[in-house]
Amino acid sequence: DKKGLNFETKDKNFKFKLGGRIQADANYSSNDNFVTAGTNNHVEANDGTEFRRARIDFTGTFFKDWNFKTQADFADNGVAMKDLFIQYTGLGFMSATVGQQKQNFSRELLESSNDLMFAERSLMNVLNAPVVDRAIGLNLQSEAKKGYTAALGIYGDTITANKPAAPNKGDEGWAISGRATYAPIEEKTKVVHLGVAGNYRAPNADDKVLDSSGVHYVYETNHMSNLNLIDTRVTGVNNIKMMGLEAAGLYGPVSVGAEYTRTWLDRKNGGTNLELDGWYADAAWTITGESRHYKQGRFYKVDPAKNFSFKNGGLGAWELAARYSDADLNDGAFRGGKMSNVTVALNWYLNSNIRIMGDYTRAFNMTDAAVTTVTGGKPDTNDTFTIRTQLAY
Amino acid sequence: DKKGLNFETKDKNFKFKLGGRIQADANYSSNDNFVTAGTNNHVEANDGTEFRRARIDFTGTFFKDWNFKTQADFADNGVAMKDLFIQYTGLGFMSATVGQQKQNFSRELLESSNDLMFAERSLMNVLNAPVVDRAIGLNLQSEAKKGYTAALGIYGDTITANKPAAPNKGDEGWAISGRATYAPIEEKTKVVHLGVAGNYRAPNADDKVLDSSGVHYVYETNHMSNLNLIDTRVTGVNNIKMMGLEAAGLYGPVSVGAEYTRTWLDRKNGGTNLELDGWYADAAWTITGESRHYKQGRFYKVDPAKNFSFKNGGLGAWELAARYSDADLNDGAFRGGKMSNVTVALNWYLNSNIRIMGDYTRAFNMTDAAVTTVTGGKPDTNDTFTIRTQLAY
Amino acid sequence: DKKGLNFETKDKNFKFKLGGRIQADANYSSNDNFVTAGTNNHVEANDGTEFRRARIDFTGTFFKDWNFKTQADFADNGVAMKDLFIQYTGLGFMSATVGQQKQNFSRELLESSNDLMFAERSLMNVLNAPVVDRAIGLNLQSEAKKGYTAALGIYGDTITANKPAAPNKGDEGWAISGRATYAPIEEKTKVVHLGVAGNYRAPNADDKVLDSSGVHYVYETNHMSNLNLIDTRVTGVNNIKMMGLEAAGLYGPVSVGAEYTRTWLDRKNGGTNLELDGWYADAAWTITGESRHYKQGRFYKVDPAKNFSFKNGGLGAWELAARYSDADLNDGAFRGGKMSNVTVALNWYLNSNIRIMGDYTRAFNMTDAAVTTVTGGKPDTNDTFTIRTQLAY
Repeated sequence: DKKGLNFETKDKNFKFKLGGRIQADANYSSNDNFVTAGTNNHVEANDGTEFRRARIDFTGTFFKDWNFKTQADFADNGVAMKDLFIQYTGLGFMSATVGQQKQNFSRELLESSNDLMFAERSLMNVLNAPVVDRAIGLNLQSEAKKGYTAALGIYGDTITANKPAAPNKGDEGWAISGRATYAPIEEKTKVVHLGVAGNYRAPNADDKVLDSSGVHYVYETNHMSNLNLIDTRVTGVNNIKMMGLEAAGLYGPVSVGAEYTRTWLDRKNGGTNLELDGWYADAAWTITGESRHYKQGRFYKVDPAKNFSFKNGGLGAWELAARYSDADLNDGAFRGGKMSNVTVALNWYLNSNIRIMGDYTRAFNMTDAAVTTVTGGKPDTNDTFTIRTQLAY
Repeated sequence: DKKGLNFETKDKNFKFKLGGRIQADANYSSNDNFVTAGTNNHVEANDGTEFRRARIDFTGTFFKDWNFKTQADFADNGVAMKDLFIQYTGLGFMSATVGQQKQNFSRELLESSNDLMFAERSLMNVLNAPVVDRAIGLNLQSEAKKGYTAALGIYGDTITANKPAAPNKGDEGWAISGRATYAPIEEKTKVVHLGVAGNYRAPNADDKVLDSSGVHYVYETNHMSNLNLIDTRVTGVNNIKMMGLEAAGLYGPVSVGAEYTRTWLDRKNGGTNLELDGWYADAAWTITGESRHYKQGRFYKVDPAKNFSFKNGGLGAWELAARYSDADLNDGAFRGGKMSNVTVALNWYLNSNIRIMGDYTRAFNMTDAAVTTVTGGKPDTNDTFTIRTQLAY
Repeated sequence: DKKGLNFETKDKNFKFKLGGRIQADANYSSNDNFVTAGTNNHVEANDGTEFRRARIDFTGTFFKDWNFKTQADFADNGVAMKDLFIQYTGLGFMSATVGQQKQNFSRELLESSNDLMFAERSLMNVLNAPVVDRAIGLNLQSEAKKGYTAALGIYGDTITANKPAAPNKGDEGWAISGRATYAPIEEKTKVVHLGVAGNYRAPNADDKVLDSSGVHYVYETNHMSNLNLIDTRVTGVNNIKMMGLEAAGLYGPVSVGAEYTRTWLDRKNGGTNLELDGWYADAAWTITGESRHYKQGRFYKVDPAKNFSFKNGGLGAWELAARYSDADLNDGAFRGGKMSNVTVALNWYLNSNIRIMGDYTRAFNMTDAAVTTVTGGKPDTNDTFTIRTQLAY
């Protein structure tokens, strides 16, 4: 059915589902004529076509209490394992998940790319992606109760192949992260959501979540542009502390949200400690009237009331969305870059499996960017256009 | 069933199929004692075993009008994504396909390796493979009507991972290709097929369909031999135009076919323009009497009238096939190589899923090949033997 | 059901199964402060988390007599194809298998990692892994009859991508291996098993089963430690002969077993011929009383009499196991290393799909190891701890 290929035994103790997603993108950039800061190397956004994601996943349930998920992404003609875990739900009041999974941090990061209103996450995610994305660990997640959810996990590294460059001197890093959310209002078309999250990570010489040559913060203008407006490494990191705040709401066809992330980098060998932060605010309006969905502290995309059909005249659902986001990676003498961007999106949900998205993003207010104009000046703006055709099942 | 694992809802609006193929080869070469032209580097065909293809594919239909296909090849212990697209068929008179797919060019290139009468495509394909094989794009394909089919597509690059070598200076290339076929006779065991195709490609610095270091034309004697008789690059290409002509026929157990490809390379910076061409003619006879199949401008393998069975005495289908092919990559001062080869094949179709193939190919008439004899002379002939066991579902 | 996703047509002539496995490990080492022998390069076991295996497999039957298996491992964010074959069973008295498969050698090597009592194979396997693990070939396996089984196969190389480093000078190697087993006693909970196996391999310049830079024998303390206590290459190998002896028994909840492997390396260009050997003995006791399984010369894990359930009080099956193993890669002037290790394991089988394993392994009696203490002395001991959560279906 529309959820992919689903099977279950009559007693529902055993289930199996094949799923997948295809995100085919075309990208075009303008105002993209730069040089790498401090050099004469000309850089320009790469325009053209690519698959942003091409995944297949096996999910299932054994003996009622045991779930699993195996999800592989083949988008770059290679393998990137995504969710890969075994989960026990037999305790009832909470679930325990062992394996690779997203850490407990940020509504935006936890939201599936199938559901996000924009083709890419915000500038705030520059701070989150290298530290609190997927890692291998043990996570405990409470059942949602009276609008509350809570999750706490301990993690090692990502699945990245464990082969060291020459003499091997170290162990993996580790991290703890937790997130709690509360929904004082939680009706089908009316939601108020609040959330707070914290993360502590102690990296190590051979830490793959953080690159061994430092925490690598990057803002690429789109996934294929190879044009990085922020591209900086923080080396000699002793530990990283992060805090995240979330607020979001839903009222019929309108939804609004905002998040803030603050990162404290504690550095060894007399390196200066750093404080970096980022935030975004977004809003969406479903022109055709449908509401986005909310469940256990997470948001999901709209489903069209009437599917698109050339023959029967259905229109699908149409959504307008806008976002402002900001990242500040400058602190004292450390100039990682500071900038803003704004994105507007028009999304067409043809049915519950197919979505076509058009995104326009402008980056501006750039200070200490990783690129300069060809004459060495501060870049003014950069524009990127993306059209995405998405199948998810 | 024999088509793999198939599911559909009762109203047939949702379908799902798991498929795959395994092609396990053993190769042996003789007359393979050469040196790379102009050097003392000894080269010899690598004999042994390999998987030519090892694929799995997910295909399906959502809401009746939306098809998709995700096909991955794991044959070299890596991932090569093949078909990866979303298709809309709701218009009725034509379908629109977005994603990675073969471009509209050449009956031989468009024919699945599951169906080809020979283990490898012809020498003519040396011209087609680097330019008109799969790419990401949007393709429109008409429904076949009164024997006519037509297709037109616009494409960017292939899925190849989009990471540039150091300073990134360019965008992807793009291409348009179209193909039209006409079958004046189209009965179950009697077919006359005519086709014409054209392609225009404008490569760019970072174009992956064409290698950034030039259009790379290669003839490897078999897929694992690492012995390239043609191995040449055309650099500084402004644009490529290609024309293809096809004629084929089927009469009961006998089928014949021929194709011709002509390529015009327009070069910049005062480089000489080039005209290269290639062609093949093939014929097959099913000893056991079955006919090959034809549908919408494409040919498909025979299905045995009686499956092979050790116990019940079925023989399966036996097919004899022969092909002559020729590639001419010499034009004026440009000496990319010019040669012919001839292939004879004996194919055993045990049932509709299993096929065992024996191929013998001799290359000859070699001028300006990429290798010479150990004394620097013109190579005389090269022979290669292939046995393939194929499972397709 | 518990065997994954199974389908068959009513006449059982067509079958299809989706299977997979996830093995998520956490590793910790102590006594791991070494330098690479003869250098000042500090080496230390890498502690942390990893996926040991993450596989999906498609298996099935076509037209009753034709089986296939396609198995891919994605554990290191790459693809390693494992079983990949087409099998004909229509002869009745024996099956013929074409494709990549394990060669006929060693009970331990042939036993699935899903069934092994320990997280890793023994020190003896240091000799087997580079020579008699999976390769592409044709294998004949008799039906088990009155306790006897016999198998004989001829093989080329593994599936490893066939791209040579620069001038290509050689063909693949090839090998023959055979194994015969006899079970004088074969009841459900009472088994005596005897086995003998032989292998002959003629490597070649471009042989991927053996690395082209020599047969590479390695003992890594665990799969992610990057700490190799044995790490040696035998170059200039003319051919390799191997002999394996097996004895094992089962009596209710108790099982015992032992194996011995001897390797003769015949070297060219006046290199000294070498004789290397290794062995192990293991024993297991299922505290909860279940028996391991035996079928056609192979052993399989226990299935719990009562599945674990937090709510209903089932305990699953609990197993205690111990193993002593030894490898001697020293012969005359060749000092590849000689050492022993001992492993104890506590395994918890929660149900027939889920297993949690705790392993402790100590290596000792090390002579000519690949590492020394930081002061250049002989390493004393090394300890490694592994916890594995396994899902297999």
